[in-house]
Amino acid sequence: MSNPITPSSAEPVVTATDPIPVPVNRIPTPATTPPDILRCAYMEIVVTDLAASRKFYVDVLDLVVTEEDETTVYLRSFEEFIHHNLVLRQGPVAAVAAFSYRVRSPEDLDRAVAFYTELGCRVERRAEGYVKGIGDSVRVEDPLGFPYEFFYDVEHVERLAWRYDLYTPGALVRLDHFNQVTPDVPRAVAYMEDLGFRVTEDIQDEAGTTYAAWMRRKPTVHDTAMTGGDGPRMHHVAFATHEKHNIIAICDKLGALRMSDVIERGPGRHGVSNAFYLYIRDPDGHRIEIYTQDYYTGDPDNPVVTWDVHDNQRRDWWGNAVVPSWYTDASLVLDLDGEPKPVVSRTDDSELEVTIGADGFSYTRKGDEAQGFKLGNTL
Amino acid sequence: MSNPITPSSAEPVVTATDPIPVPVNRIPTPATTPPDILRCAYMEIVVTDLAASRKFYVDVLDLVVTEEDETTVYLRSFEEFIHHNLVLRQGPVAAVAAFSYRVRSPEDLDRAVAFYTELGCRVERRAEGYVKGIGDSVRVEDPLGFPYEFFYDVEHVERLAWRYDLYTPGALVRLDHFNQVTPDVPRAVAYMEDLGFRVTEDIQDEAGTTYAAWMRRKPTVHDTAMTGGDGPRMHHVAFATHEKHNIIAICDKLGALRMSDVIERGPGRHGVSNAFYLYIRDPDGHRIEIYTQDYYTGDPDNPVVTWDVHDNQRRDWWGNAVVPSWYTDASLVLDLDGEPKPVVSRTDDSELEVTIGADGFSYTRKGDEAQGFKLGNTL
Amino acid sequence: MSNPITPSSAEPVVTATDPIPVPVNRIPTPATTPPDILRCAYMEIVVTDLAASRKFYVDVLDLVVTEEDETTVYLRSFEEFIHHNLVLRQGPVAAVAAFSYRVRSPEDLDRAVAFYTELGCRVERRAEGYVKGIGDSVRVEDPLGFPYEFFYDVEHVERLAWRYDLYTPGALVRLDHFNQVTPDVPRAVAYMEDLGFRVTEDIQDEAGTTYAAWMRRKPTVHDTAMTGGDGPRMHHVAFATHEKHNIIAICDKLGALRMSDVIERGPGRHGVSNAFYLYIRDPDGHRIEIYTQDYYTGDPDNPVVTWDVHDNQRRDWWGNAVVPSWYTDASLVLDLDGEPKPVVSRTDDSELEVTIGADGFSYTRKGDEAQGFKLGNTL
Amino acid sequence: MSNPITPSSAEPVVTATDPIPVPVNRIPTPATTPPDILRCAYMEIVVTDLAASRKFYVDVLDLVVTEEDETTVYLRSFEEFIHHNLVLRQGPVAAVAAFSYRVRSPEDLDRAVAFYTELGCRVERRAEGYVKGIGDSVRVEDPLGFPYEFFYDVEHVERLAWRYDLYTPGALVRLDHFNQVTPDVPRAVAYMEDLGFRVTEDIQDEAGTTYAAWMRRKPTVHDTAMTGGDGPRMHHVAFATHEKHNIIAICDKLGALRMSDVIERGPGRHGVSNAFYLYIRDPDGHRIEIYTQDYYTGDPDNPVVTWDVHDNQRRDWWGNAVVPSWYTDASLVLDLDGEPKPVVSRTDDSELEVTIGADGFSYTRKGDEAQGFKLGNTL
Repeated sequence: MSNPITPSSAEPVVTATDPIPVPVNRIPTPATTPPDILRCAYMEIVVTDLAASRKFYVDVLDLVVTEEDETTVYLRSFEEFIHHNLVLRQGPVAAVAAFSYRVRSPEDLDRAVAFYTELGCRVERRAEGYVKGIGDSVRVEDPLGFPYEFFYDVEHVERLAWRYDLYTPGALVRLDHFNQVTPDVPRAVAYMEDLGFRVTEDIQDEAGTTYAAWMRRKPTVHDTAMTGGDGPRMHHVAFATHEKHNIIAICDKLGALRMSDVIERGPGRHGVSNAFYLYIRDPDGHRIEIYTQDYYTGDPDNPVVTWDVHDNQRRDWWGNAVVPSWYTDASLVLDLDGEPKPVVSRTDDSELEVTIGADGFSYTRKGDEAQGFKLGNTL
Repeated sequence: MSNPITPSSAEPVVTATDPIPVPVNRIPTPATTPPDILRCAYMEIVVTDLAASRKFYVDVLDLVVTEEDETTVYLRSFEEFIHHNLVLRQGPVAAVAAFSYRVRSPEDLDRAVAFYTELGCRVERRAEGYVKGIGDSVRVEDPLGFPYEFFYDVEHVERLAWRYDLYTPGALVRLDHFNQVTPDVPRAVAYMEDLGFRVTEDIQDEAGTTYAAWMRRKPTVHDTAMTGGDGPRMHHVAFATHEKHNIIAICDKLGALRMSDVIERGPGRHGVSNAFYLYIRDPDGHRIEIYTQDYYTGDPDNPVVTWDVHDNQRRDWWGNAVVPSWYTDASLVLDLDGEPKPVVSRTDDSELEVTIGADGFSYTRKGDEAQGFKLGNTL
Repeated sequence: MSNPITPSSAEPVVTATDPIPVPVNRIPTPATTPPDILRCAYMEIVVTDLAASRKFYVDVLDLVVTEEDETTVYLRSFEEFIHHNLVLRQGPVAAVAAFSYRVRSPEDLDRAVAFYTELGCRVERRAEGYVKGIGDSVRVEDPLGFPYEFFYDVEHVERLAWRYDLYTPGALVRLDHFNQVTPDVPRAVAYMEDLGFRVTEDIQDEAGTTYAAWMRRKPTVHDTAMTGGDGPRMHHVAFATHEKHNIIAICDKLGALRMSDVIERGPGRHGVSNAFYLYIRDPDGHRIEIYTQDYYTGDPDNPVVTWDVHDNQRRDWWGNAVVPSWYTDASLVLDLDGEPKPVVSRTDDSELEVTIGADGFSYTRKGDEAQGFKLGNTL
Repeated sequence: MSNPITPSSAEPVVTATDPIPVPVNRIPTPATTPPDILRCAYMEIVVTDLAASRKFYVDVLDLVVTEEDETTVYLRSFEEFIHHNLVLRQGPVAAVAAFSYRVRSPEDLDRAVAFYTELGCRVERRAEGYVKGIGDSVRVEDPLGFPYEFFYDVEHVERLAWRYDLYTPGALVRLDHFNQVTPDVPRAVAYMEDLGFRVTEDIQDEAGTTYAAWMRRKPTVHDTAMTGGDGPRMHHVAFATHEKHNIIAICDKLGALRMSDVIERGPGRHGVSNAFYLYIRDPDGHRIEIYTQDYYTGDPDNPVVTWDVHDNQRRDWWGNAVVPSWYTDASLVLDLDGEPKPVVSRTDDSELEVTIGADGFSYTRKGDEAQGFKLGNTL
């Protein structure tokens, strides 16, 4: 039986099974079996003013403190049962120290070591873990320059899902995904597919230039995404709420606290992922997304949605403008010595440039010329 | 007992009992008693392509057709029991033919005639009404140049409040308010107060220039607002939904229909009124607001909230930019002969100019200089 | 022009202009003008354990404390600007000390004195008010035996509408209405109409027995309702939330606190009023309703909805059972000496008896016999 | 590192890794590898009046018709991309013809054949599939007597996730789970664990009697649950909505259609699963659950929550009564010849009997005696 994809009536959405072009300078596929990754589990970020960051994440965003000391705060979301989803560590330079994934078994750490060793990457393993609450773990500088961590062993803590006496209007219930900036998206995707990830959606142009790709292990739209740009850098880390009004409540609270200027983009509805979203910036400029309601992607033949970079509804389904900083700003990442990784420039076309301003071109309806009163048209 | 207003901790919000400066060229207060106005009841708009407008209001916005013929469509919201809240009439020039208010009794029509006759306005009364469903009514060209209508007699129709079999995700349940553009806001407010309206909120600067004022008869934030600008023109007409997700559903539907370019501004949370909002434009450019959740204002000493025009949260509590078209575009209004009224320029400062761009100045926190990545800062 | 009411397709709903039968033993209509009542403003209740009640209303329901001392707590809702909406006063017997209404002007207090004096009621006036925050006020024992209060002068406090930093998931934003138990509903309604109230909805049977009536001053479905039963007693006091999920959040929190047994009825959708509701009981058994989204009723010819007492969707639109305690339990009310008023039995048919159990009869569709698995059918 | 489970402060909730007692009469574990099941995919039900059922599922519940003919209707939810989630087939006896699961690959069908053949079950395979849209598939009568189906090959159809022009207020977006009635829950669980399922939550008493267990493949609380009772029977099939208000909209619509008597239980918040729920009954009495917002369970050491059968918040977090029909009624299931399977009685204690009525015992707070006005206490 053939599996014809019925094209969506939303015309510029194209679906296909394997839409990303073959990369020119492919990272070789290791012969060894990759680790069986369950999900993105936590991010460790370096902040330059721990008190200010604690206030932002705990007092404003209402993340739950599992544990803290003078230099570090361990935070989790309401439905989490592992020790943390976010680590704030005091340091001299705002950056990301680890993108951490949970794997299915302790043996998967051996597989991670073999996989990255074969790739020629720097690999370190610590039986006692790198941060509190996490046991035996592996950290690597991956082929794209990102500090990736893998662990299985973890301290269990109370899952606060039923603790409605503690919920706040904007309660964050789950870590949803990471988003990484890298110059060559097809090259990054091919490596991530070797690591066991699957593409769910992507943005391309007619020439096949790939601007971004979303990839998953758990059956949501993504555990991480690759966004084309100067990298390696961290674009954002995303937490989920239950409903859309929870995200609106966060905006309202930021207004009441006279902190509305931390709202960078949104709230809005994504085209890609179909989720409702908000982007805010923490005191160091690290970008946080609040996200709710994407869709199940767990079947191996889950249709891949390819968006035209010129479709003005791809990034915001309502066609609202993407602020330039959202394309240009991102956080540095650290190597395993804790030093910032040098950033390599993207040489492919930039999504910002091809879509906004005098040289850009975006449409609401394919064939119609861009027009109207949208702010994005006037930039 | 004194009634000291406890200042809100949201610092730039100032409350006072009568905040609008006395107008220089005041319209004389009539000696006669004004009509007892219940509420804004319906707007009659002229559209240049009735089929296109019917599709917009009925198929997209899901307003209910009470009755229609070849040149006119009579529409109502789900909780309405009078014949209509919006009349679409085919005509050569897109404009507003009437801002129509319901009064408490038939005798209030006599009062309206006397009130506007004393003001020297053109006044017409028709026992059979101007449009279907409405009986005895009075139309005037008011001192500001707007076509105002007053009526009591009206055909009752089914209130569809309980008809959840007919509701759609973005169901509009009530006409909430009008918004008018006029050059001299204090002059307009003084006349409207003579007509029995009360100010609930306003926007001023430190010099006392008034940029906008919200006024009510029914105990919500407004039945109409006066927005400073070239006028007389109609800024928007607003319909209410039950909840915020209903407004989001309208945006999502517009995206699915590839009509996202009709979204002009929002969705967002207003500072003024505290309501959740969306602005869209119909096929003729008439602006529609979708609105939910302002507050009770029915006490005679209801505190008036005066916003600083430089407060970047006054128009959008989240500090998101107001698109320039929202300040500049508005619909013409017709005189009683159906001819467009000439537009008089505003001579006071423009809110657009004092808040956006090189000469403007807006703050998130009073004393802080404007900065950050908001689109509004880059225009 | 005639005003034919189009019957709703929801068949057993009947609308009419004046549906309540003329009472047999009518309370004479005073010749004097009644006070111009704005709205229900606050209730003063006597609680037997102030600490327990404070915990319930402040820690569980998140009402805002305006002021408190050793014997009294003054509470308000988030959008209120007057001193309080609920007073908890320590006392020996759980009861209601006052149903308090705000009037339009100080002169209306004189009108209240004259109105009730003419009715032969006990009337007391105190220039300094009866409770903190309230100035000159009048308390009466009304013809039905209820302690009614009227005031204009009141201390203003911060309206917390914009204080989203303080909101909780179940935030109560407004006092919505009272509900009173009285033996003879038509007699009560006629008196309340003399006082200036208007009926919006009621429950009757085919013989014209009236079981309950809803009456308003502000343009919502009610400021108070008269429920047929042994009285005078207080059935409940209701606070409004913004949206339905806020009410669900209160239920969820009660579950998390292992206090779910204070949930007496709901959440559900009312037939009468069309609002979404929840009934809970405080530590003394005083009943609180949480309520959201009824409709505008401010027009003088607002259609009155008369529900058949046998319509199983009248009290709960989903046909879910009304628990017997909801019909039988209510709070005592105090006379002006602070003594509980004797309770007089209802002699008309009881809604409980005619609708539930072996002798009752309720239908989902008129003409169909009651059947199915609903708990209400098995009681 | 040890993984101590921090007990929830919601006291009667106990978590453990493997809480179900070892069954006495265990079904032998096959030596062969089980099929790799992705998720519950669709249910095929036999209905006795196809027109009535089509009206219920399409006009009332707004499921999407993928395809239909004179005897069969194929329905899907808004986010689905495979041909259907529910098949309605006209037949003489209301029953369930198949609980159908999607597997990861075509090879898993061979594994399913081997697995059930080793178990001694009747196994049939059809290369052309049993219903339209599904290709090569295997149907078995499983050891518990249920008709289970496995397939990989399926026709793709448009995923309507972005088609907000088609959404209705109560849109069903995903098939969430099945629920089966079987006499011996531990025996059923042990077999399902052999098939690759994992327990997420369960209900027991202090003696270790197991009343129900929830088991998952995809990382939600369940793909199916085993409910103790006379079986094999089908308890319900559940569809997910995005938010809670969508479920309320379904109730409201049923009221408007005067079909509220199809609401059997809810809406409410489950204790088990923490989801918001509603149970309704179709024209043949088949039970449908509408369900939203459980939590991620995909980690192999996901904590298992064991509820005390006497905890009155286990089935409804708000303590609202479970109607007896919910415990007693269920749908017959068919063997592979299309004949109803005989029903075997449960011999273990019944949850209905141990929790409701004179011999039952439920508590809100452990140690407190049952009391109060809840309907459940009066049955």
